[in-house]
Parts: sequence; structure tokens; C-alpha cells
Amino acid sequence: MNEFDFIDQLRRQTQSRKHSTRVIKGIGDDASVIAEVGNRDLIVTTDLLVEEIDFIRNATPPGLLGHKALAVSLSDIASMGARPSWSFLSIGMSRETWDNKFKDEFFEGFFALADQFGVTLTGGDVSESKQGIVIDSVVLGEVASGAAILRSGAQPGDQIYLTGTLGGAAAGLKLIEKGAQMKQESGVGGRESEPSTSPTVRQGLSDRVTEKSDDDSIQTLLLRQLRPSPRVGWGIVLGEERLATAMIDLSDGLSSDLYHLCKESDVGALIDSASIPLDEDVRHLCGRRALDPLALALHGGEDFELLFTVDPKNASRLPKLVDGVPISRIGEITDAGIMNITEKNRTWKLEPRGFEHFKNEG
Amino acid sequence: MNEFDFIDQLRRQTQSRKHSTRVIKGIGDDASVIAEVGNRDLIVTTDLLVEEIDFIRNATPPGLLGHKALAVSLSDIASMGARPSWSFLSIGMSRETWDNKFKDEFFEGFFALADQFGVTLTGGDVSESKQGIVIDSVVLGEVASGAAILRSGAQPGDQIYLTGTLGGAAAGLKLIEKGAQMKQESGVGGRESEPSTSPTVRQGLSDRVTEKSDDDSIQTLLLRQLRPSPRVGWGIVLGEERLATAMIDLSDGLSSDLYHLCKESDVGALIDSASIPLDEDVRHLCGRRALDPLALALHGGEDFELLFTVDPKNASRLPKLVDGVPISRIGEITDAGIMNITEKNRTWKLEPRGFEHFKNEG
Repeated sequence: MNEFDFIDQLRRQTQSRKHSTRVIKGIGDDASVIAEVGNRDLIVTTDLLVEEIDFIRNATPPGLLGHKALAVSLSDIASMGARPSWSFLSIGMSRETWDNKFKDEFFEGFFALADQFGVTLTGGDVSESKQGIVIDSVVLGEVASGAAILRSGAQPGDQIYLTGTLGGAAAGLKLIEKGAQMKQESGVGGRESEPSTSPTVRQGLSDRVTEKSDDDSIQTLLLRQLRPSPRVGWGIVLGEERLATAMIDLSDGLSSDLYHLCKESDVGALIDSASIPLDEDVRHLCGRRALDPLALALHGGEDFELLFTVDPKNASRLPKLVDGVPISRIGEITDAGIMNITEKNRTWKLEPRGFEHFKNEG
Repeated sequence: MNEFDFIDQLRRQTQSRKHSTRVIKGIGDDASVIAEVGNRDLIVTTDLLVEEIDFIRNATPPGLLGHKALAVSLSDIASMGARPSWSFLSIGMSRETWDNKFKDEFFEGFFALADQFGVTLTGGDVSESKQGIVIDSVVLGEVASGAAILRSGAQPGDQIYLTGTLGGAAAGLKLIEKGAQMKQESGVGGRESEPSTSPTVRQGLSDRVTEKSDDDSIQTLLLRQLRPSPRVGWGIVLGEERLATAMIDLSDGLSSDLYHLCKESDVGALIDSASIPLDEDVRHLCGRRALDPLALALHGGEDFELLFTVDPKNASRLPKLVDGVPISRIGEITDAGIMNITEKNRTWKLEPRGFEHFKNEG
């Protein structure tokens, strides 16, 4: 039984005993939706980050961990088309970690991101842990009643869009696994520089990346992994303008997350590989190392971009940029129950091969 | 810096940057209070349970751990005078634990308690953990606007009350530390038997406990530790009838939790030791072992009873029993900033000596 089988089982057990008629969406989406008594719905997400599994302590400066703990939950709220407001943080650590400056740096990174989006740390819990650091990040947000964008609303014929670029976070993880380290002071605390407005990306998505050193690309990719930018602005716009029929954030990887969306919507998808926006630093480094950037983009997780579907009649209303972040149209929802991808003149079946906890072996 | 110093520091950092005007109570109470857009307030609590720190794996059957994970959060919601509705559970465990029957038994115990109070499992997260089990339990509840009972509302002259009896959970923990084990099948899953309606307690709180064997007392005390009964009914009644001026649940121990309440209310307290309701199994076993049941009642944690204060003019409106659980009046709020306790003809200063994570040494 893998992670998703287990979640499905819990979902069935919960549905068989549903008590609260105000649960609009329970287990089985990026976040849960509860009807408030007024004209809004409450959105709730929880994300558990465990040392050695979800982050590597030595490669993760505390300030970036504080950033990431909040960022992953903000991304879930964004993927529901909601506006985040309140954060709760449960954190366990050893006495040794407690006694050093970890806490202060962690919360410096946390508050910098919280301030950026007007999110208030509203509660939480602290415990000792005999082993590593463990963090549960809970964020609450809101949408107008009925406006939450679920995974289940995609219809055949809808266009499929992505914010930003893919592959950077997975490449960053590979670099960390090979021993790459953040340079001192690089991006710890303070406001993040959006990749889309960094000098790197200002060069555009062309292949003319000749000036940039490998070192610069490596640092940029480490930040894509360690300091993801949740697409909060896009989430709010898509929710308020009711532009998306379904949405999910890319935490496990495009192939797996698209699979979740298709499964919940009971549809298929046809993706055009040439239109998938690849991270330019990934292309830069992969080009020199004969790696396949498309594989990273398809199956690498943690880019925390938004994947969403749009009724073609609303496509002209989509903004070009939100907070400087562009979108790309990568394919179309089909009514067949499978996902296909075209590459040059071939079409092949896209299997979900992204990250999962407790993956079934064999 | 101990747990409470750190929480105070975070609270100041949060207040200096408060974004959401809808946060009625943030860090620094049993749970947080957020104004909904309708005529209700949302109550949110999170509780982190870490193996080896907050529970001992070998002494805790999975079903009872599932019960306790929810119970501690229900107790926090009750202590705000709120009605619990929605639960979120983040859980990390090793692959070995994942692959055995732990999950099923854990959720059997969890759902039995959730069903008892009409609480819906609405979301959560799952992660692998290289080390022990870690659980973050989040519960959301509601009260009428402005009706949440904070720690900070006690006034000099208010009467101090307690639900149930004290010392049982701490005695149970001592027994576990000495190697006592639950008997097979004892209380795992299914509805709990309230201590107050068990044969033991039906004998009343007199000293005439002569029939009961030490073995029976030990099993009862283990359950007080492993399967606490959150006082959900009392919380709802006190909140709906607006009977309590301040409230806290007894998780750290009476001396510490009363201290938190007094500190937040800027008041003192005078407790009458003779009126503290001692667990009768604790008295039974302590009597034979020359231990001091009063010390367990004052400083032992995890009884998850409610400690609350009442304006004397409302005292006559207090129910005698809710869900079979009685209350005891144990003292009075004073305006001096210290806590005193009378014992026979002496009065001495009551110091907070309950549980805290990362206790300052020396």
C-alpha cells in the first residue's frame, strides 16, 4: 500500500461516516474546504516536513527551511484559488538544536515570507524530539463561497496551463545529493528574488545562455529547491476571477500531479512536450552533462508551480503575468482516461513517475 | 530559554507585525481564535506528539495513541468553550511501521473518539520518518462570536473550579515508567468507559475503597494516561451558557496551568488543598506506597480536566454534572500576583512545577 492508496482508504472511511455537512471537500485535494457561516469558504492545508526525508539538514540553512515550511503550504492554498491569511506551526527538535541559533534563523526566514503575503502566525505547538527536526505547517485561507478550485473540475476540451518553469527544484535536489552547497549568505532571510525577475531569467527562455557560469546556475537551482516561490498571486487571481476549472500544485512532479488531477476529474490529457517550459539553468547544465531536462520537468517534484485547466472560452481573460510570473499552455484535457504526450512526431503514454512516500516496490 | 519563554518571544514578534485584523487571539492560549465572516468565531488548535517524548511506543497500543492524538486537541477546543467539528492529522512513521498493522489500529482508536463527538477527519498529510512516529493533531471548532473563553478573563473574587479528578494520568505515567503494561484488549478501540461511570468511581470519592485490587487500580490509571477523556461536553456548556470567565485544560499540571491562567489574567489564586479532587485509584495505591497523591495532583500533567473560573453571581447556574462528570470548587482568584495554597492550618506559595519542554536547568 503506497501513500496514495492509504489516503484513498482513509477517504472512504471518512466518507462512510461524514458528520459535518459543512465539509465541501475533505481528504483528496491539495487542501480541504469548509463552509463558513458567512459567504466564504475556509481552506485548510497541512504539510509535514521530516528531517532526512523531506529535507537534508546539512544542505538546508535554517532560514531557508523556515521559508520552505511556509511556502509549501502557501502553494497548496494557492492551488485552491484561495487567499492565505493564517499560519500555525508545530515544530519538534532536539535540545541541542533548541539551544543553538536554529530557531531564530528559522523564524527569520518564515516571517520574511509570511510578511510578503500578509500571513499571520496565529498558533502552533513545540515539542522536544529525540531525533531530527520535524515541522508541521498548517495554513488557513479563504475564498468566496463555492469558488474553491478543486482537482476534480476539469472537462474534456479544457486547456492545460502551467505557471513558471519546471525542473529546477529537482535539479537542485540532485545537486544537493551530489554535495553542492549554498554559498554563504546567499538568499538566507530577507525578501526572495523571484526567478522570473532575476538576471538569469531576464535573458528570456531562449537558448542563448552563454554568459552565465555553471556556478551561478548551480546556486540558482539550489534556491529553486531550497527556497521555492509559492504562486500566491496566481492562485488569488484564478480564484477571484473564476478562471480555472481545476488546479493542483506541482509538488510530486508534473506526471504525477497531472495524473491526480485527471483521476479526480475522470478525464485524460494530451501534453505537447515542446511547450513544457523548462528551467533555463536546467537546460544550461543538462546540455553540458547529457542529462534529459524533459525527464526532470516531467517527473521531478517540488517546483511548486500551479497546474490548472481553463475552459477555452475563458482563455482570453487569462492575464499574461501575475507578480512577474508567466504561464504556458502545455496541452489539452481529453475524455480518454489516459495521459499522452507528444514529442516530435511520436505520441507516447505518460505514466505518473513523480515522488511518493512509501512507494510500492517491484 | 524554556518552551514558554520561546512562545512568549514568538508572540511578541507576531504582535509587532500583526496583519490579520480578524485574529481575536493568536499565540498564548490553548487554541487560537479567528473571526469568521458570519456570527461565529473559528477555534484552531495544534498538538505535536513525538515518540519517546510525548508517548512511549512500547507502552502505548496504536488504538490508544489514535485516541490520545485526537483527545489532546479536543481538550484544547473544550478549554475555549467551543464545539469541535473538524480534524486534520499529519503523521510520519518509518516504512516498517507503515507496513505493519499500526495504521489500521491507530485510526480505529482515532475514529472511535471522533465518532463519539461528531468530529470529521477533513484532511492531513503523511510522510516517511527515518526515526520514530510523529503526529500533529489539528482540530477546528466554533463558538458564537465573542464567546471563546480565554485564559485571560479571570477577575479577583471569581471562584475556581475543576472537572473530574486529578493525579490519575501522572500516576499512570509513573506506572508505565516502572514497566506496567495494559492488559490485552483492555480498552483498545470502541467507546471509552468514562471513569466517572466505571464501577470504581461509582463507589464515590469516599475513602472506603477496600474491595478493589491493586491490579484493577493499575489498569485504571494506565487508561487515565493512555486514554484521556476530553471534557468536550463541559466545554460546550460553559461556552454556550457563558458561565466561565477564564479556562485552561490541565495538560502540564494544575500548578503550571493555574499559573498560566493567573499570568494571562494578571491575578493570583488561593487554593484549598482539601478541596482538590484526587483520583481515588491514586489514593488507593499511594496509601499503600507512602507516596503523596497531592503532589501528583498539583504537578502531574495530562489529566486533561478543565480548570475554569466563574463569577460568584453565576455559580448557581453551573450544572452539577455534564456527561456524568462532576466539578469541584477548589479556590478563589485573588488580586495578588501569586498563587497560594492552604493545607490544614498552613498557607504556602504554590510554584508552577508541572511539565515543560526544554526546561531550564539549574
